[in-house]
Amino acid sequence: MATSIDLVADLGEGFGTWTMGADDALLDTLTSANIACGFHAGDPRTMDATVRGCVSRGIGIGAHPSFPDLAGFGRRAMDLSENEVRTDVLFQLGALHAFAVANGTSLSHIAPHGKLGNLVAVRQDYARAVVDAVTAFDPSLIVLAQDGALADEATARGLCVGIVGIADRAYNSDGTLVARSEPGAVIHDVDVLVERTVRMVVEEVVEAVDGTLIPVVADTVLVHGDNPGAVANAKAIRAALEAAGVTIAPLAQVVASRRARDVGCSA
Amino acid sequence: MATSIDLVADLGEGFGTWTMGADDALLDTLTSANIACGFHAGDPRTMDATVRGCVSRGIGIGAHPSFPDLAGFGRRAMDLSENEVRTDVLFQLGALHAFAVANGTSLSHIAPHGKLGNLVAVRQDYARAVVDAVTAFDPSLIVLAQDGALADEATARGLCVGIVGIADRAYNSDGTLVARSEPGAVIHDVDVLVERTVRMVVEEVVEAVDGTLIPVVADTVLVHGDNPGAVANAKAIRAALEAAGVTIAPLAQVVASRRARDVGCSA
Amino acid sequence: MATSIDLVADLGEGFGTWTMGADDALLDTLTSANIACGFHAGDPRTMDATVRGCVSRGIGIGAHPSFPDLAGFGRRAMDLSENEVRTDVLFQLGALHAFAVANGTSLSHIAPHGKLGNLVAVRQDYARAVVDAVTAFDPSLIVLAQDGALADEATARGLCVGIVGIADRAYNSDGTLVARSEPGAVIHDVDVLVERTVRMVVEEVVEAVDGTLIPVVADTVLVHGDNPGAVANAKAIRAALEAAGVTIAPLAQVVASRRARDVGCSA
Amino acid sequence: MATSIDLVADLGEGFGTWTMGADDALLDTLTSANIACGFHAGDPRTMDATVRGCVSRGIGIGAHPSFPDLAGFGRRAMDLSENEVRTDVLFQLGALHAFAVANGTSLSHIAPHGKLGNLVAVRQDYARAVVDAVTAFDPSLIVLAQDGALADEATARGLCVGIVGIADRAYNSDGTLVARSEPGAVIHDVDVLVERTVRMVVEEVVEAVDGTLIPVVADTVLVHGDNPGAVANAKAIRAALEAAGVTIAPLAQVVASRRARDVGCSA
Repeated sequence: MATSIDLVADLGEGFGTWTMGADDALLDTLTSANIACGFHAGDPRTMDATVRGCVSRGIGIGAHPSFPDLAGFGRRAMDLSENEVRTDVLFQLGALHAFAVANGTSLSHIAPHGKLGNLVAVRQDYARAVVDAVTAFDPSLIVLAQDGALADEATARGLCVGIVGIADRAYNSDGTLVARSEPGAVIHDVDVLVERTVRMVVEEVVEAVDGTLIPVVADTVLVHGDNPGAVANAKAIRAALEAAGVTIAPLAQVVASRRARDVGCSA
Repeated sequence: MATSIDLVADLGEGFGTWTMGADDALLDTLTSANIACGFHAGDPRTMDATVRGCVSRGIGIGAHPSFPDLAGFGRRAMDLSENEVRTDVLFQLGALHAFAVANGTSLSHIAPHGKLGNLVAVRQDYARAVVDAVTAFDPSLIVLAQDGALADEATARGLCVGIVGIADRAYNSDGTLVARSEPGAVIHDVDVLVERTVRMVVEEVVEAVDGTLIPVVADTVLVHGDNPGAVANAKAIRAALEAAGVTIAPLAQVVASRRARDVGCSA
Repeated sequence: MATSIDLVADLGEGFGTWTMGADDALLDTLTSANIACGFHAGDPRTMDATVRGCVSRGIGIGAHPSFPDLAGFGRRAMDLSENEVRTDVLFQLGALHAFAVANGTSLSHIAPHGKLGNLVAVRQDYARAVVDAVTAFDPSLIVLAQDGALADEATARGLCVGIVGIADRAYNSDGTLVARSEPGAVIHDVDVLVERTVRMVVEEVVEAVDGTLIPVVADTVLVHGDNPGAVANAKAIRAALEAAGVTIAPLAQVVASRRARDVGCSA
Repeated sequence: MATSIDLVADLGEGFGTWTMGADDALLDTLTSANIACGFHAGDPRTMDATVRGCVSRGIGIGAHPSFPDLAGFGRRAMDLSENEVRTDVLFQLGALHAFAVANGTSLSHIAPHGKLGNLVAVRQDYARAVVDAVTAFDPSLIVLAQDGALADEATARGLCVGIVGIADRAYNSDGTLVARSEPGAVIHDVDVLVERTVRMVVEEVVEAVDGTLIPVVADTVLVHGDNPGAVANAKAIRAALEAAGVTIAPLAQVVASRRARDVGCSA
């Protein structure tokens, strides 16, 4: 049974004058943040302010690199070469790193965004590109991923992996997420959300859409803050986890404790 | 008398499929490179390849940050806030830093590009913004500048400054450059170029447009590689300096030797 | 006394996934819209949807061209050549024109955005560049401007000008706006807003910050929809104007009626 | 036997300070130009100057719309919705149209660029999106395409289609191009180039890589001007066609003459 879990959300996804999500309202609920690095969102001011907000609360900072697609918010597939993905990721890692350093901290993790995040789970070349970038830049970074090619490649190369549990999405019985286009893919009911998340963390299982229980080992749970309701849901999830005796802990600590059980990584 | 000088050029100023300048032909002539960081030129692949080319020859790598102006190549004035300049510079420093690290080296200096480079000499807020970014990110970076606000601010804040001598531009008697729009502003004759550069380095004077000799202390000489003629000129300058007994040396070494004479900086 | 006035707002100022302002809530209040053209805001989908929303309500469509500055929302001064401004404006006019045509309508006017909008009032070269673009593309477009270089140049070149009255800004006694950085520059009190706007339209005067009454001839009043309060204010302004016997009419009609009195233009 | 053929090249593919290809050297050889519209290349100044160069020689102007991918020159596949392709194409059509109008002409055709150009031949949704954009903006535009989905969709919707013959590429026996990754895909030998092109135009056949003769009906032949050799090849192709009694004629005229024989379209 997991005794500790990290709570992570995507932050800093505005651009220039545009904002997205209730970042400030969410900060007190989180232990980690995936921060946009300029390719799908996140101009330099937004990146700086988001990092500063995280530092002031001790929240772990991760790079959230994307395809270069501001107009599409990084949600559209691009067919890039392995070297293009690697160098795009390096560029974004470095850019966010500068704001981490300038604010007196350092990056803790990386979590590919949007369609890049989907594709690294199934495209070996994209997974290798991300792992190559991390290995070359800072092999102590934890790689956030769902089960799939990126998690496998990172583990094989000695990087620490943090598995992400998705609180508000339905799972197929093979452990993949139900596609957003399917009915019931996104779970909105707060009671269901909370119950599933607690079960995922405490019992390490989730009920798939066909009713079967499937094993899920999560180091962090991804919550959302896109709207006031989402922030309330995130707070409810945190409260329920704590009530169930789970420690909400920084990602590095959670990964280290799991590592002691069943994995080895170089960080 | 200066016994050593650095030779620097702006490199990596292509973007995507577009190239600029004969970077490869110039590499053997240089000891330092100012590398574009994505805002006026320099996509991630160009940045990576340019850094790699420099590393393979032991050339010192500097960030060449710009206003965000790809269509104008960073040559158009923008009226930004001090915080906008600071965060834009941090972003670019970090992005290039990632490619330095990935290629096994680190940044040696920073040299603001184009119109930003012009304005940091006269706008105190822009000078402060650059110095703030450098101080926060890596105070060991040498700040390349001509005489002016940036050199003063950097020196006052304990950063090492490298003064740039411009081989191919005419000087006014007050030490400023003759505006490009004036006749004779740019020197094309290779013999004149070579003679002026050697005199600038060896005698530490340059002849202004009114015939007066003005003092110039340069730690590095900026050469160009925009066309085959420019590359030949750069090679001729290097050969003439060496023939005059000047050691072509890395920027850090030149700055350190000058520092022993007359300045102190923290690097 | 003006018997008719146009009501205009800046619309379509989102980008990709980001939205700005309550465009839909404002549509029933307007007779004209200034629509972002991609340089400070407005991706192709936003432009298309905004044009469609205007067409469905018979709202006149104007191009709202900007400096190329997505990160700064076009609010930062850029020092461009006259040809750069001219060609940037042509590009944006054409892009919006395509969505007008595709939605069965045509452009009625042009209103430079943000800092470009400020500078065309005082920089003769920028004013000429905008007028050159309009003359070359479609001289029947009405040029929205405040008093200044653009209005003068457009009038001198035979273009129709629509003078914009700003409901929510304080005026200096010379007819210029009080700078946003000054206290009291922006008027928030809805009663004051409404009273000033009605007086501006009906009596053609506005009370300056020093208490003097200054003459103002407005063909259109700019309202805002940035927030729910702004939308309510816009509705209150429209209601009060109608209660005062003013006809809310399309810009072309208002300009034509004024032209019958005191100006000539080619449209 | 074809008695007339159009000669077309991709022009205006620089961006800002970067140039590509010897546009000026190629102009006297062409009757049509595909002009970049800002998404893969072509800032407003380049677009304006390229249109002006074409107008001065009576060259027909076509829009060369692309995926939004400046860093990848539009050569990387993107998975967009049909509405995204449609609105991206509309935006680019309008932008180029403005420069056509400002230079006293109008657009004659559209030719999707790069990877978009490849995909419209095989993706029905992308083909529909392009045809929808053309139909909504200007159904008199000729749609340049190779055989495939775009040509079929455009024909079915009553648009005029101009079939593009590719002089310097090897064909498979099914009429598709040999992939660039295959040996022999690109033909460099000028004698072979010239002979194949004349045969393609005069006999309406091309020899496929397996030696079979396949029928090809071309309204225009695409030549390149990327380098001095390419320009010389283009001149040689034109000279050989003229020597063979073929009239080099504007695209609209060629399409009209073919239409009289075997197709109907609304333009």
